[in-house]
Amino acid sequence: MSADVIGKEILAEYEKLSSSIISDSLDAIGIHGTINDIVTQVPGTKMCGPAYTVQYSISESTLGRFADFLDDVPEGAICAINNRGRTEMSVWGDTLSLYAVRHGFAGTIIDGVCRDIDGTRSLNYPMFSRGTFMRTGKNRIGVESTQLPITLGSVTVHPGDLIFADDTGAVAVPKARIQEVLEIAKGIVARDDACVAAIEAGKSIADVWAAGAQAKAALSR
Amino acid sequence: MSADVIGKEILAEYEKLSSSIISDSLDAIGIHGTINDIVTQVPGTKMCGPAYTVQYSISESTLGRFADFLDDVPEGAICAINNRGRTEMSVWGDTLSLYAVRHGFAGTIIDGVCRDIDGTRSLNYPMFSRGTFMRTGKNRIGVESTQLPITLGSVTVHPGDLIFADDTGAVAVPKARIQEVLEIAKGIVARDDACVAAIEAGKSIADVWAAGAQAKAALSR
Amino acid sequence: MSADVIGKEILAEYEKLSSSIISDSLDAIGIHGTINDIVTQVPGTKMCGPAYTVQYSISESTLGRFADFLDDVPEGAICAINNRGRTEMSVWGDTLSLYAVRHGFAGTIIDGVCRDIDGTRSLNYPMFSRGTFMRTGKNRIGVESTQLPITLGSVTVHPGDLIFADDTGAVAVPKARIQEVLEIAKGIVARDDACVAAIEAGKSIADVWAAGAQAKAALSR
Repeated sequence: MSADVIGKEILAEYEKLSSSIISDSLDAIGIHGTINDIVTQVPGTKMCGPAYTVQYSISESTLGRFADFLDDVPEGAICAINNRGRTEMSVWGDTLSLYAVRHGFAGTIIDGVCRDIDGTRSLNYPMFSRGTFMRTGKNRIGVESTQLPITLGSVTVHPGDLIFADDTGAVAVPKARIQEVLEIAKGIVARDDACVAAIEAGKSIADVWAAGAQAKAALSR
Repeated sequence: MSADVIGKEILAEYEKLSSSIISDSLDAIGIHGTINDIVTQVPGTKMCGPAYTVQYSISESTLGRFADFLDDVPEGAICAINNRGRTEMSVWGDTLSLYAVRHGFAGTIIDGVCRDIDGTRSLNYPMFSRGTFMRTGKNRIGVESTQLPITLGSVTVHPGDLIFADDTGAVAVPKARIQEVLEIAKGIVARDDACVAAIEAGKSIADVWAAGAQAKAALSR
Repeated sequence: MSADVIGKEILAEYEKLSSSIISDSLDAIGIHGTINDIVTQVPGTKMCGPAYTVQYSISESTLGRFADFLDDVPEGAICAINNRGRTEMSVWGDTLSLYAVRHGFAGTIIDGVCRDIDGTRSLNYPMFSRGTFMRTGKNRIGVESTQLPITLGSVTVHPGDLIFADDTGAVAVPKARIQEVLEIAKGIVARDDACVAAIEAGKSIADVWAAGAQAKAALSR
């Protein structure tokens, strides 16, 4: 898999969006992609890219396999790690953030926790998790699989699905719907821009909503 | 209702206080006004003003009514919104924060979540909630009532009650007790000032407490 | 008890470490010292020092004893307070932070909450707790004991145990093991430094781990 399975132009368009706009776009076609309980640990950062999925397991047979998948993560990808929500052991520290920065990863999202958060903040590396805890998962858990479907919060994420995250939270867009969701998002952006213009013009809230709806409809005509 | 139901002089006095001082003042007359589980989403901001109360409902009959109350919120008021603690759908985004700033609202408090928090932070608009989530409540919930009593955390808030919030949290003061609580607060301020002076003078903690108690008693004589 | 029960040279060595490195060192000798659910309230601060332990109780017989232990806390010590995880009443405010700064305490950790967090942030005083809440514990709880074992999260902390905390979280090292843990930590630091050098040199993750293990082994030889 190459990060290029999502075209550079498409990624560049997505980078201008927000988790809210993408969520509204997913709503429009009935897709559940809003990832609950996983929040930024480096406020002010955003990330966008295809998911490289990793599943950690507490099974003894997986011990010894810890973060060994990093060489396989393509440039521009997001490490999407499911540690089944465990908050009592970390799967990521600032050494891995340094590795990720040097190899051009877009960011990391963990259904679980990370550590050394001050180091990761110094690198300004996008990191989303349930929180931070210093106890290592090494010798406690191991990698069960990579590039198979995982869950993040209540969302199922497949390899290559687009993940987008900002200070509000994280969303996932199924690989096959990335282009379609982007087209819908353009209408939402037009709606929001029209709302902002109407507010700046001193309109009532009813007129603000009406201006937004009109701008969105104009684009989809 | 006008925000002026709380006099400008009284509001100016309250703005110098803190949630702790107001809480101690409420304690002194046995009023429960400390709002649990709702925290700042824009650290470093404070807000103070009369509550304009809004109740959201998941009932289908309310769908379509979303944020339409904004035109009725008076300048200087605080939007106090009960979404029954729902964290899976947002009732506020940065478009509404922009509207609120343009129309001079004092801030917003939500028993629930908001979205577009980076935009709200750019505006430095005071926003207190249980957290952030990007999924919209639009078409999922609607406004059931405005200007009726609501609950925020475990506190019942009536229209026109004073809400004060800072980085420690949020408190509510019943409308009829606003002046009385302010008078008590002046004694608490005197107590705290005396404690700080005693600490700076190198006193023992027992003497610090004694200096504080004396200053407070002097004021209430 | 004097804070000097931990030698100045040892403390100076510990101050260069992180909660992660200390946690790994504790793991190496099978000691549970990672304190869950208690996080920084003043991001960017670290603290390190011997614990002065305090137990609060809701028993009526303890009322009236509130923060009166402060005069007994030695310079350089950490106030380690167990309020049994209560989040609905505070045991610490910015007046106490000022006292702590003037008397040279290293910081405060609370299994419970604190208030006036903006004031404590202005002082840049290290404060770790479950969160913030403005309602005072005064006249609700009182000091049951000082300098007896307490629990912080799931960790038992004895008077004089070393507490270290940073943006990732807090750990405790039993008094009798402080020197031993430091020696192990030196190997972990060597391991991490070697990992960083290997990453900067463009090595694969397997070679990064190998370089780290080699550096650690070299030191323990």
